[in-house]
Amino acid sequence: MKIICSQGQLKNSLSLVSRVVPSRPTHPILGNVLIVADKRKNEVTVTGFDLTVGIRSSFPAGVEEGGVITLPAKLLNEVVSRLPEEEIVITYEEKEEEENPVVGIHCLSGRFQLRGMKGDEYPDLPVVEGNGFSLPGEVLKEGLKGCLFAASSDETKQILTGVHMKGEGDTIEFAATDGHRLAVVREKLVEEEGEGEEEGIYGGEKSLEFDITIPARLLRELERILSGIKEEERVELYVAETEVVFRLKEVLLTGRKLEGLYPEYNRLIPHSFEKTMVVERRRIIDSLERLEVFSDQKNSLVRFKLNPPKRELTVIMEAGEIGGGKESMTAEISGEEFEIGFNIKYLLEGLKAFSSHEVKFHFNGPVQPVVVTPLDGRSMIYLIMPVQI
Amino acid sequence: MKIICSQGQLKNSLSLVSRVVPSRPTHPILGNVLIVADKRKNEVTVTGFDLTVGIRSSFPAGVEEGGVITLPAKLLNEVVSRLPEEEIVITYEEKEEEENPVVGIHCLSGRFQLRGMKGDEYPDLPVVEGNGFSLPGEVLKEGLKGCLFAASSDETKQILTGVHMKGEGDTIEFAATDGHRLAVVREKLVEEEGEGEEEGIYGGEKSLEFDITIPARLLRELERILSGIKEEERVELYVAETEVVFRLKEVLLTGRKLEGLYPEYNRLIPHSFEKTMVVERRRIIDSLERLEVFSDQKNSLVRFKLNPPKRELTVIMEAGEIGGGKESMTAEISGEEFEIGFNIKYLLEGLKAFSSHEVKFHFNGPVQPVVVTPLDGRSMIYLIMPVQI
Repeated sequence: MKIICSQGQLKNSLSLVSRVVPSRPTHPILGNVLIVADKRKNEVTVTGFDLTVGIRSSFPAGVEEGGVITLPAKLLNEVVSRLPEEEIVITYEEKEEEENPVVGIHCLSGRFQLRGMKGDEYPDLPVVEGNGFSLPGEVLKEGLKGCLFAASSDETKQILTGVHMKGEGDTIEFAATDGHRLAVVREKLVEEEGEGEEEGIYGGEKSLEFDITIPARLLRELERILSGIKEEERVELYVAETEVVFRLKEVLLTGRKLEGLYPEYNRLIPHSFEKTMVVERRRIIDSLERLEVFSDQKNSLVRFKLNPPKRELTVIMEAGEIGGGKESMTAEISGEEFEIGFNIKYLLEGLKAFSSHEVKFHFNGPVQPVVVTPLDGRSMIYLIMPVQI
Repeated sequence: MKIICSQGQLKNSLSLVSRVVPSRPTHPILGNVLIVADKRKNEVTVTGFDLTVGIRSSFPAGVEEGGVITLPAKLLNEVVSRLPEEEIVITYEEKEEEENPVVGIHCLSGRFQLRGMKGDEYPDLPVVEGNGFSLPGEVLKEGLKGCLFAASSDETKQILTGVHMKGEGDTIEFAATDGHRLAVVREKLVEEEGEGEEEGIYGGEKSLEFDITIPARLLRELERILSGIKEEERVELYVAETEVVFRLKEVLLTGRKLEGLYPEYNRLIPHSFEKTMVVERRRIIDSLERLEVFSDQKNSLVRFKLNPPKRELTVIMEAGEIGGGKESMTAEISGEEFEIGFNIKYLLEGLKAFSSHEVKFHFNGPVQPVVVTPLDGRSMIYLIMPVQI
């Protein structure tokens, strides 16, 4: 194997894929990244895989001699990231007998040697088979931003540790819930209505049709990858029997779907409300962040006092032994005076997932689910169960 | 007590003093900061103290009613740092009977209450008595930068956990050693020679005369405080029987001296050498930082190969099982070909403490102490014991 590549591209690929490489691998080779040099394509592919989530990243390189090798992810990443931005030459002579062959990394400033492991033992990423859908990267990004935080982090809750994604026609619905709150985002593939729909603006893509639950861990990696792409870039989604694959221009992300039936969350969302309140989103977040200082594991209750005639919302946090705080802000309130309590952490996380300048709270009684929506026209709801005061 | 002050000034003072407040105080009140409002001076003073190191910071404020109270450092810091940049009003009604009085913090956006503890139980900072010396802040900053890193972090080594500071005439010598390396910096109070010395450019200050060892921990706080001051600001140093006090314009730092005789380090520094080598400091640091990736607890040896005819230094790190690296760079070498080994961490720390473009290594044999000096005219040496190859 002999590769001539740029330090920058190798560094980027390594930092993308090393995140899924476990620091304490169950088998030594899983602590390595797989490097494949394709002479015909003049392309290098770097893969990290922990048997659950896998990332593969490719970049163009001068491949004088093709080959396959695995190298310790952490060490390789540390060496490459410290090298100056110049050409790097990676060489490795394949010999049958050697179990841990030495791989050379040369550049202008010096020469390094790393002991690798042969590539044949490295597990294969799942093969992409099944239905493919082409999605705008922005749609995925927005969908995940609006609901990923609400997935359960409790591994025993299985299906709730994932995000439910349902594609139907030209719409994807993203949903996540941990039992205390529910976030649902609906994204259309085409934003402009009426424009070019008849001519098939999807670029030949078929109408969406999938119903899957994907582990939040996998989607956090997707979110990270998406944060680095260009606005117009598209993502291919392949849904197979047990796996799901996201394929971008130079990155491929793969992982298992979560099995089981996702709860019928739409039935939980009330459609009529007795009172509503519109507040500035940034203002209420700032207040809650200050009050959150007084919360701890025992006490996370924030009280809302709605005063319609004064057009005022007061948020109150009481933490007997250490103190407490109270802030008031302008709010447009319909209905009568009213008090209700929330878990401050859940409330803050939800409000931060919106992007709108203002949000609208929809209430019924003090123990009935509360629905928060943005005022920017996006189809997104955050349902949160109140805490009894 | 009633104080009207700016959020920014209170925040700065709190972040300065909270660093010394222990997170697990031996007595509850030591987890608090002391707040003193002086009506006559219109000044607020905030103090943090862990019985060993104390910091006091003052700032001007509107004091409508004087008073003394202590408040939980962490909680107060978190609340104040999240408040918008506006006026803050702090109020507290002194009542004899209350053990944990409630202190109010009001600003435009809201009202907070924190439970404090009365100030009378808060321990006094050591009183400043003894000789006072006025030192330029820059001199202290440079002296500490050049040697603080070399103090021992092993608490059992007592006197070696400090920095030795010796003032004599118009010179301060800073020294620190942990037994493996020694850093000595000599700083003159007046940089320009011959200029105004006769008229007493020190501004009336007396000739220096002290010989003290100060805990590195205290000096790290001083370094942090100095990083925020103006270039021309001066620091008063008071040396008392058991304590030492650094007084800046608005900050006071106090702590215990280390007792015992500091080793006679000057006797350890050789004065004649067989070989020397001049290298670019940044270049050798970059190489060593890459090679350091291969070091671990078992292996920290970096080898130097000096090749005078080729005007080349090669640095080599071998880490058998995982690999290794080798880099070469230009160096002006006097003497014969030569090999020597170092602990890579110690070497790097020393090189980073210099500021010069080039450094000069002075060698005798491969097991005799090596001396590194800067080539920028500063009086600084770094002595490091080689590691046998």
